Amino acid sequence: MDGHGRHEDKVDNGFNHEEEEHGGRKSSNNGAEYEMSVEQIFEKREVPPWKKQLTMRAFAVSFVLSILFTFIVMKLNLTTGIIPSLNVSAGLLGFFFVKTWTKLLSKSGLLRQPFTRQENTVIQTCVVASSGIAFSGGFGSYLFGMSERVAKQSGDNGGFKNPSLGWIIGFLFVVSFLGLFSVVPLRKIMIIDFKLTYPSGTATAHLINSFHTPQGAKLAKKQVKTLGKFFSFSFLWGFFQWFYTAGDGCGFINFPTFGLKAYENMFFFDFSATYVGVGMICPYIINISVLLGGILSWGLMWPLIENRKGDWFNADLPKNNMHGLKGYQVFIAIALILGDGLYNFVKVFTRTLTGLFYQFRGRQSLPVANQHSSDTSDKLSYDDQRRIQLFLKDQIPTWFSVAGYVTIATISTIVLPFIFPELKWYYVLVIYIFAPTLAFCNAYGTGLTDWSLASTYGKLAIFTIGAWAGPNGGVLAGLIACGVMMNIVSTASDLMQDFKTGYLTLASPRSMFVSQVIGTAMGCIVSPCVFWLFYNAFDDLGLPGSQYAAPFGIVYRNMSVLGVQGFSALPKDCLLLCYVFFGAAILINSIKDMLGKKWGSYIPLPMAMAIPFYLGPYFAIDMCVGSLILFVWEKLNKEKAAAFAPAVASGLICGDGIWTLPSSILALAGVQPPICMKFLSRATNARVDNFLNSKS
Amino acid sequence: MDGHGRHEDKVDNGFNHEEEEHGGRKSSNNGAEYEMSVEQIFEKREVPPWKKQLTMRAFAVSFVLSILFTFIVMKLNLTTGIIPSLNVSAGLLGFFFVKTWTKLLSKSGLLRQPFTRQENTVIQTCVVASSGIAFSGGFGSYLFGMSERVAKQSGDNGGFKNPSLGWIIGFLFVVSFLGLFSVVPLRKIMIIDFKLTYPSGTATAHLINSFHTPQGAKLAKKQVKTLGKFFSFSFLWGFFQWFYTAGDGCGFINFPTFGLKAYENMFFFDFSATYVGVGMICPYIINISVLLGGILSWGLMWPLIENRKGDWFNADLPKNNMHGLKGYQVFIAIALILGDGLYNFVKVFTRTLTGLFYQFRGRQSLPVANQHSSDTSDKLSYDDQRRIQLFLKDQIPTWFSVAGYVTIATISTIVLPFIFPELKWYYVLVIYIFAPTLAFCNAYGTGLTDWSLASTYGKLAIFTIGAWAGPNGGVLAGLIACGVMMNIVSTASDLMQDFKTGYLTLASPRSMFVSQVIGTAMGCIVSPCVFWLFYNAFDDLGLPGSQYAAPFGIVYRNMSVLGVQGFSALPKDCLLLCYVFFGAAILINSIKDMLGKKWGSYIPLPMAMAIPFYLGPYFAIDMCVGSLILFVWEKLNKEKAAAFAPAVASGLICGDGIWTLPSSILALAGVQPPICMKFLSRATNARVDNFLNSKS
Repeated sequence: MDGHGRHEDKVDNGFNHEEEEHGGRKSSNNGAEYEMSVEQIFEKREVPPWKKQLTMRAFAVSFVLSILFTFIVMKLNLTTGIIPSLNVSAGLLGFFFVKTWTKLLSKSGLLRQPFTRQENTVIQTCVVASSGIAFSGGFGSYLFGMSERVAKQSGDNGGFKNPSLGWIIGFLFVVSFLGLFSVVPLRKIMIIDFKLTYPSGTATAHLINSFHTPQGAKLAKKQVKTLGKFFSFSFLWGFFQWFYTAGDGCGFINFPTFGLKAYENMFFFDFSATYVGVGMICPYIINISVLLGGILSWGLMWPLIENRKGDWFNADLPKNNMHGLKGYQVFIAIALILGDGLYNFVKVFTRTLTGLFYQFRGRQSLPVANQHSSDTSDKLSYDDQRRIQLFLKDQIPTWFSVAGYVTIATISTIVLPFIFPELKWYYVLVIYIFAPTLAFCNAYGTGLTDWSLASTYGKLAIFTIGAWAGPNGGVLAGLIACGVMMNIVSTASDLMQDFKTGYLTLASPRSMFVSQVIGTAMGCIVSPCVFWLFYNAFDDLGLPGSQYAAPFGIVYRNMSVLGVQGFSALPKDCLLLCYVFFGAAILINSIKDMLGKKWGSYIPLPMAMAIPFYLGPYFAIDMCVGSLILFVWEKLNKEKAAAFAPAVASGLICGDGIWTLPSSILALAGVQPPICMKFLSRATNARVDNFLNSKS
Repeated sequence: MDGHGRHEDKVDNGFNHEEEEHGGRKSSNNGAEYEMSVEQIFEKREVPPWKKQLTMRAFAVSFVLSILFTFIVMKLNLTTGIIPSLNVSAGLLGFFFVKTWTKLLSKSGLLRQPFTRQENTVIQTCVVASSGIAFSGGFGSYLFGMSERVAKQSGDNGGFKNPSLGWIIGFLFVVSFLGLFSVVPLRKIMIIDFKLTYPSGTATAHLINSFHTPQGAKLAKKQVKTLGKFFSFSFLWGFFQWFYTAGDGCGFINFPTFGLKAYENMFFFDFSATYVGVGMICPYIINISVLLGGILSWGLMWPLIENRKGDWFNADLPKNNMHGLKGYQVFIAIALILGDGLYNFVKVFTRTLTGLFYQFRGRQSLPVANQHSSDTSDKLSYDDQRRIQLFLKDQIPTWFSVAGYVTIATISTIVLPFIFPELKWYYVLVIYIFAPTLAFCNAYGTGLTDWSLASTYGKLAIFTIGAWAGPNGGVLAGLIACGVMMNIVSTASDLMQDFKTGYLTLASPRSMFVSQVIGTAMGCIVSPCVFWLFYNAFDDLGLPGSQYAAPFGIVYRNMSVLGVQGFSALPKDCLLLCYVFFGAAILINSIKDMLGKKWGSYIPLPMAMAIPFYLGPYFAIDMCVGSLILFVWEKLNKEKAAAFAPAVASGLICGDGIWTLPSSILALAGVQPPICMKFLSRATNARVDNFLNSKS
């Protein structure tokens, strides 16, 4: 399932603030129909100071929900390894819990503080942070790959370290907070200057806003109704699809829409309401970039490389072996992502330095934001103005993040080698030197496309650190390095998503940050405990064929075993191709910047192009379907499309997102879908029919 | 495929004249938006006299098309036995042929007569009549069931009669014209008084009208655009579905929408655009009746009877054996249909007699029409008035039809025993005495629901005549009786469909009748010749497992073999149940009439209820989906729904209909779909996966 599962890398659902912008802009042109923008509607609702946003009840609810979600994620970790996003579920369930609570309290006259959307955002952030640890903790992948049970299956001599409650909690506490500090200073650049989409975060924000919308807002009400309609549709569609997914390769997500040949090359429409919605939100250029990347890789390069089978790499290798085609896929994608990420990192870093320089010189504050938005400030809508104002009110000083990062990194560098003797302190130091760059890359990429590539960066760490450490202890070192890296990049992108949600719900960055810290701490205790429960309850955990087979454990270990053989283990010309694509990414970005805003916006984004390199272009097709729907809608009725498309998209994304909750519960309860919708070639079908007839 | 194939009984696509009515009514209320009714738009177009409607070029085109369609139908006859309707294709292709021709002529200045919609209707009627013979001639069923090849497979001693060009042509000429004469006198009652829907005929009429709509009609243009949109959608949907149908039980038409258990009992939505469209046209009560009938039979009665397996009938019988459950299904359905048909026949017959009585007394003409429509005449729209006026202008005298029927019946009674010595002259006489009743039943039923049950009536003939003739020659006698019966009832319903088309396109009933006669004559020569070609070209024709297996040949012969054993061969209590349902049909109809218009319209129609008894309720579900769409649309915007729903429905029906042409051509060319979309239970899927993994 590795290359195919869209959720191997943690996926978030998405939505953006386009609606508010359009809705807001329209308010001046067309007062009757599109009366008020979101923040105009909320204008009279006081935004509580950041400390008031962090209530006890919020964290109590978060704790209960985080246990629930951790159970779900853990189960999925240990069965298929495919983890969908639970952002939206967290926002929704948090609302219902607290709303019921406050309603009961207000009836009994005991309610002291009303339930605000900021508080709702705090709950959602806390729950996501906590259950995120269940994913980035690697209980089904790198962490479990270190165990004796997996080492025996793999048959290598790389050593093992069996799970134990003590060291897991310690390990998580030492590595999980670094991601938070590493991207905090960049939040302004990401969210205000770059106006990154963060579809998931935006969708959640939109949902939360709609729950708390005051009465009497006509357009908002209509939008909420539209959202509700598409939410129901998407939820029911997910439910309907579920019935046909008994077994691998079954169901609509494997529909060979363009034929079996195209399906083999991952070109198909997988009927995912989520990605159609994401496509409706993302700018056209992103969707086109993703599709272009898919065509370039799966339509052109991989088939060509596949033809070199036996020449460039051993023809007998299994399909997912890193020495074969998979190696090209993973490493070229990483090269593109790194090239784009590095270019933007350097660009942003110089800007940040300039900004800091001006700040030290005592000039006006917020030079970065002003510098970038000076050309657009006159166009800023009321919503944007108010959001930027509140987003920048509660600062988190840069020295605080830097100091936090350095402190934790130091502790981590000292502590980790004690837990894992194979991991030398200088490996950790090197990871912590490069980690902020990669965390930035991941947060930036997630903002553009909603794909968090945490496990891809983790794989990068496996290979580099594994190769460096060499045969002597390199296997374990690689796996732990993967964990360290994944924790940083994953929490970094999660935090940035939450900052976006906070930005759109006027929650303070400080309360977001605190909520994330508390949520992460919760996760560092809850996740290992839940894992420990599973580990002790099921004796056959991790054994192939058992109910809890934890398939990615052996996959990650094998990658690490490969890694210790160094870059020389890569298939022929792979490294050369990596250099070429790394350079191309930088070149394309330079051209984009040189052409300026007008023409540069027609140049595809290398980061977006890289994602389908590894996963396949099927989700790009979903996104382009979303784009197409929006395009046609805009042609038919531009105003209506601008006002309602985000609600439609949000409904599609959220409905599918919420469906994952009951579907996970069904899986937990052992309820399996009854039917398999299978796709067979004519010849295979004839064989199967013969087989079935001969048996019955 | 017998019980499952919706096309075993010839199926027509459908549409009705609701639109014109609504469109027309709206014209007075809402002049700006819904400007003119169809006939107001056509007002300035002169309707040529009936003899001018019958042009040489029309019949030349008809001849070419009828050869094309006969090839297609014959191929389908001899491969699967599932024949879709080609009405719409005929209308469309006729238009394009003549339009191209007339355009070329008008450019060269040679055009003497413009191409009118009446002429178009004449072509369509002629082609349908001609290619209809390829179906009702039974080349894949009863006629081929008489051959030595099938007799050997069946292993009975019932004798055989091998196909031969001479006697087939003779046989067809002798039996094919009777249906035309038998229902001609009832056309006014069916179309004007009963306002029967005839969805297929209406759809074709709508299509033809839209092709010939003069420029400048705003609403009509919009409707045509809507029709075109849904036409394309439906066509592309049919095309898309095709790719996934490699093999039996594959594709969307076998989608177990409500689970596998429900699918086994024929409850599923089969994604047929045609029947969703039909459901949008048919009155709600029809759709509800069909669904009720489906629930009563497949949801309640058949499972209960199935439980009596081993008690009421032999448990070891194959599923399609007439001694088992299939017997109940077929005969109870027939009982209901006969009960309803007989009730309405008697009712109409007394009315007809009264009408004739008044006519003889020298009163005003059209007493039947006036009598019935007196209470509604003040409400008649312009369209209806004009159509009725033209429909009644060219009379076909009743004495002419009666004389024609008697003459042909006499010739037939004399000639048939010479061709088939097993068929005594008095069998033929008895069939011809009862045939008009059954022809009326079928024409009436088709008008209501668009299902022609010709082969069901044929089966009735097999059983009654077979039983009467007894073991000595009864098998062949039954098969020929089936042919005689099928030809009559099938052409009767076809003719009435064409009268409806003619009514809505202002084509004269006389030209319709003549066109049918010419078309039938063409068919009587073309069909046997095409069959002869196949028969001589493929030596293994009719052998199981060969490309041209003609599966229904052996099915029909087996039915006849069963039939000679008489009604006593029916499973236990089947005859009793038949009596009960026959009585119930008459009772329900009486109640319906007694309750009067207001409350009677809430009573379901037994005829409609009977159809799913045999075929299964899946198409009822399609129709109810259509109803639901219309219902919701009407709730949202009643005027728009009234104006555009028929265009949407027509588009859905026609697109799917036209798709059958390329799909047949693909089948003829031996192009098979590449993929099978299969539905397996979880357990079966696991077995199949094991099987596939072990082989690869």
